Amino acid sequence: MADMRLIVAGAGGRMGRALVRVISETPGAVVVGALEAPGSALLGKDAGVLAGLPANGVELSADLWKLSANADAIMDFTVPAATIANVAIAAERGLVHIIGTTGLSASDMAVIKSVTSRAVVVQSGNMSLGVNLLAALVKRVAASLDESFDVEIVEMHHKAKIDAPSGTAFLLGEAAAAGRGVDLHTHSARGRDGQTGARRSGDIGFASLRGGTVTGDHSVIFAGPMERIELTHRAEDRTMFAQGAVKAALWAHGKKPGFYTMTDVLGLTDF
Amino acid sequence: MADMRLIVAGAGGRMGRALVRVISETPGAVVVGALEAPGSALLGKDAGVLAGLPANGVELSADLWKLSANADAIMDFTVPAATIANVAIAAERGLVHIIGTTGLSASDMAVIKSVTSRAVVVQSGNMSLGVNLLAALVKRVAASLDESFDVEIVEMHHKAKIDAPSGTAFLLGEAAAAGRGVDLHTHSARGRDGQTGARRSGDIGFASLRGGTVTGDHSVIFAGPMERIELTHRAEDRTMFAQGAVKAALWAHGKKPGFYTMTDVLGLTDF
Amino acid sequence: MADMRLIVAGAGGRMGRALVRVISETPGAVVVGALEAPGSALLGKDAGVLAGLPANGVELSADLWKLSANADAIMDFTVPAATIANVAIAAERGLVHIIGTTGLSASDMAVIKSVTSRAVVVQSGNMSLGVNLLAALVKRVAASLDESFDVEIVEMHHKAKIDAPSGTAFLLGEAAAAGRGVDLHTHSARGRDGQTGARRSGDIGFASLRGGTVTGDHSVIFAGPMERIELTHRAEDRTMFAQGAVKAALWAHGKKPGFYTMTDVLGLTDF
Amino acid sequence: MADMRLIVAGAGGRMGRALVRVISETPGAVVVGALEAPGSALLGKDAGVLAGLPANGVELSADLWKLSANADAIMDFTVPAATIANVAIAAERGLVHIIGTTGLSASDMAVIKSVTSRAVVVQSGNMSLGVNLLAALVKRVAASLDESFDVEIVEMHHKAKIDAPSGTAFLLGEAAAAGRGVDLHTHSARGRDGQTGARRSGDIGFASLRGGTVTGDHSVIFAGPMERIELTHRAEDRTMFAQGAVKAALWAHGKKPGFYTMTDVLGLTDF
Repeated sequence: MADMRLIVAGAGGRMGRALVRVISETPGAVVVGALEAPGSALLGKDAGVLAGLPANGVELSADLWKLSANADAIMDFTVPAATIANVAIAAERGLVHIIGTTGLSASDMAVIKSVTSRAVVVQSGNMSLGVNLLAALVKRVAASLDESFDVEIVEMHHKAKIDAPSGTAFLLGEAAAAGRGVDLHTHSARGRDGQTGARRSGDIGFASLRGGTVTGDHSVIFAGPMERIELTHRAEDRTMFAQGAVKAALWAHGKKPGFYTMTDVLGLTDF
Repeated sequence: MADMRLIVAGAGGRMGRALVRVISETPGAVVVGALEAPGSALLGKDAGVLAGLPANGVELSADLWKLSANADAIMDFTVPAATIANVAIAAERGLVHIIGTTGLSASDMAVIKSVTSRAVVVQSGNMSLGVNLLAALVKRVAASLDESFDVEIVEMHHKAKIDAPSGTAFLLGEAAAAGRGVDLHTHSARGRDGQTGARRSGDIGFASLRGGTVTGDHSVIFAGPMERIELTHRAEDRTMFAQGAVKAALWAHGKKPGFYTMTDVLGLTDF
Repeated sequence: MADMRLIVAGAGGRMGRALVRVISETPGAVVVGALEAPGSALLGKDAGVLAGLPANGVELSADLWKLSANADAIMDFTVPAATIANVAIAAERGLVHIIGTTGLSASDMAVIKSVTSRAVVVQSGNMSLGVNLLAALVKRVAASLDESFDVEIVEMHHKAKIDAPSGTAFLLGEAAAAGRGVDLHTHSARGRDGQTGARRSGDIGFASLRGGTVTGDHSVIFAGPMERIELTHRAEDRTMFAQGAVKAALWAHGKKPGFYTMTDVLGLTDF
Repeated sequence: MADMRLIVAGAGGRMGRALVRVISETPGAVVVGALEAPGSALLGKDAGVLAGLPANGVELSADLWKLSANADAIMDFTVPAATIANVAIAAERGLVHIIGTTGLSASDMAVIKSVTSRAVVVQSGNMSLGVNLLAALVKRVAASLDESFDVEIVEMHHKAKIDAPSGTAFLLGEAAAAGRGVDLHTHSARGRDGQTGARRSGDIGFASLRGGTVTGDHSVIFAGPMERIELTHRAEDRTMFAQGAVKAALWAHGKKPGFYTMTDVLGLTDF
């Protein structure tokens, strides 16, 4: 079978470069396009060289329409505005759209889902095997324990991260809320500071730590009467996220249109 | 319904006293007998007073046969030899036998199971809700991940504990082995020290920490390529184990003969 | 030497009862008074009985002036308004004042310090040996590492706690700020939530978890380039705080007037 | 000032390649020689290319005598036999010898120290800032707490590690023993398994976990009555060790002969 032809969005950024490296080591996949923002100083540079590899002849471009003429998928870990701009073109061109962008709003998600009757989209706040397995565990435990167990989610990321809690923390919070059958928006406690009063029963708490070069640690704590269960994931390197995204692209190749998540890719639906 | 009448074995010990206290606070259960080893200096003392409660009129005795004439169950967190001695009497007298004793050998287990065609036995290396839930999670995760994820189990207990690894660590190891479909005895690594060589793929590793007054912490770590999942249980107080045992007794009251575990009591069979 | 005569403030509360129990087991100390708020339903009750002990003949009273006629010290883990009300009486009566109350404002502290030219006061956000040792460590590490190491403080307490961060978290934050020679008020990040932007260099971050029955866990994380140091304290039981307070009272007996902290009591000044 | 000229021993191995990369990014240092074992298939290869860099014209050689004619230091993270073979040549040639090799025996250490009246040697079981700072903390805490606090050391490393406990765990154990004024050899508990009996007071316990790709985590736990202090270091990447070694080389340049450790390099002697 011919290699799957991938476009890397944000190819000049940290995650984009990691994607270029991982794809270069993955049998069955090849980089055929590299997208960057209009006006970027990197336009025209070689994507391989930027990634610390030998030149691969793929120059950074701001024109997704042109790039997508001969491609199968777009790998998109960028920012919400860029991802939304890519959605319509990817759908029109029949590209699989792999979306790892974080910070997507409810209306962003609505735009994304509006194309999935005719396009294949895989979207996840975290592309790693471990985090998605953790989310499946959290859902089960939350369904199994009653409200005498309080749920708290704490995460730590490097000092350059600009939002809190992390997209992955929300993904885990959604899993806990789903397990309990409640709406996360009306059952969460964030940014505790000052005279908070006693903990509201049923809330899912969030706390965020920032510092150093931490790739990403997440813990979900179920704290009950005289005992605690703590479910933790530690990511040692961001390469892992790129690997998950490429795995998702290869899995999605040829699937029928629809909205998919890593739970589908990893076969955790019935976990 | 009449209260369930319970005998506490080892009623002069730390766990026995905790059982007496918990039963005194549990609706539907009452202490009617207190067993101690023949020759104990505590024989004849009041079990309530020993537990820091008002006198309850139940004097410590070494004669289980006599105690069991008017009882429904025996709560047994003692030592293997004592538990085995209790098995036959409990079965003969029709008592539910709740066994939390640790360090039971394969032949001890065979003796215990030999009576379960005619008696109700609930046995577990750990009676807490959290640990049994953790074991169910471990089994699932182990079944879901391939051998590129190494399984390690680490536990910490107070300085007076005399064996290692803990019974609960073995319970968690058995869960991991069951998830993978392997035999724990041929797939474990214990007491690493010196020139061990590289880790043998498929092994389940055990490590034990001892110190202070730690009630009991257990972690099961799944360490894979560039990521880790850690599943941890922390017990804050031994009261929790007594509560689980009393819950088991109430659950077992009137059940048909058989060998049960906390997985049955807690409804985690299909977790 | 005669026993040191102690008044327990808030003797009907959880911490007050723990103090009564610990004092009953401490050679050289005796409970001679039990203070409660005016109007409390517990006034007139026996402090020993409330603490789960045999009656000790000390009835709860709302009149500190009368209680202090024949006492050497007052043990005060109450609320800021009550503590401030006690300060003047204790100083006038020559009582050692041991203050473990949390949530004291800057002006509360000013009132407390205003009497220390003539009275002995020991005040600390946390009375345990371990936490105060941890604070000494944090100060040293903060002084030793440059700002390429980010400082984060995370704590977890039971679900009934009404303020965040904990008093102990602030105590640790002050130690980090002192080590760095900065003012904590202008160098802290609390309650992160939403679009926070990148971490501000030099900030000391705080995060609070709440749930279950956790007595109190605190971690101070120094996160630098590709490595982290984490300094953690875990309290297993609140008895420890009562023990520290009684130790402080015995230490303070006969000391010359002044403002002291657990650093003085534990001899950690030159740590 | 001219660049310091460094020889990288084991230049074909994982740590050697990391050293070549780090030196290439360090102002004031340059790779002038690359050593490998006689018979290695890599002899004659370019050290830069092996490290994933552009060729640097330094070919792997087995002849340290020749390489050291025009060098200032040798960076040595190899195996004990190789390091011992390098000691005499380095001393004879006046090279600074930076030794990060682990598993050195007492007699190996005696050989190394035999040359330090005329040569500069920096040796450490772990070259990172964080670990050496942690060791200084451990020594202080151990000196400050009495034997009611039990000391336990637990470490986790990747599945390819062949010895246990790690060299860093021993370094931390030595720090604890020094703080207490005891001999580690007669006060340690390793490889707990089976009927261990109660913990021996005063022992320093060790436990080792192995799995996945963990660079190296170490915790020293002080477990006392109802409280614990845990001091943890997490290494995110082995680059950090190479950086520490290069820092040590630059520090040692021009120092008078002697045996030095990272405590000297990092100025932690009086910590």
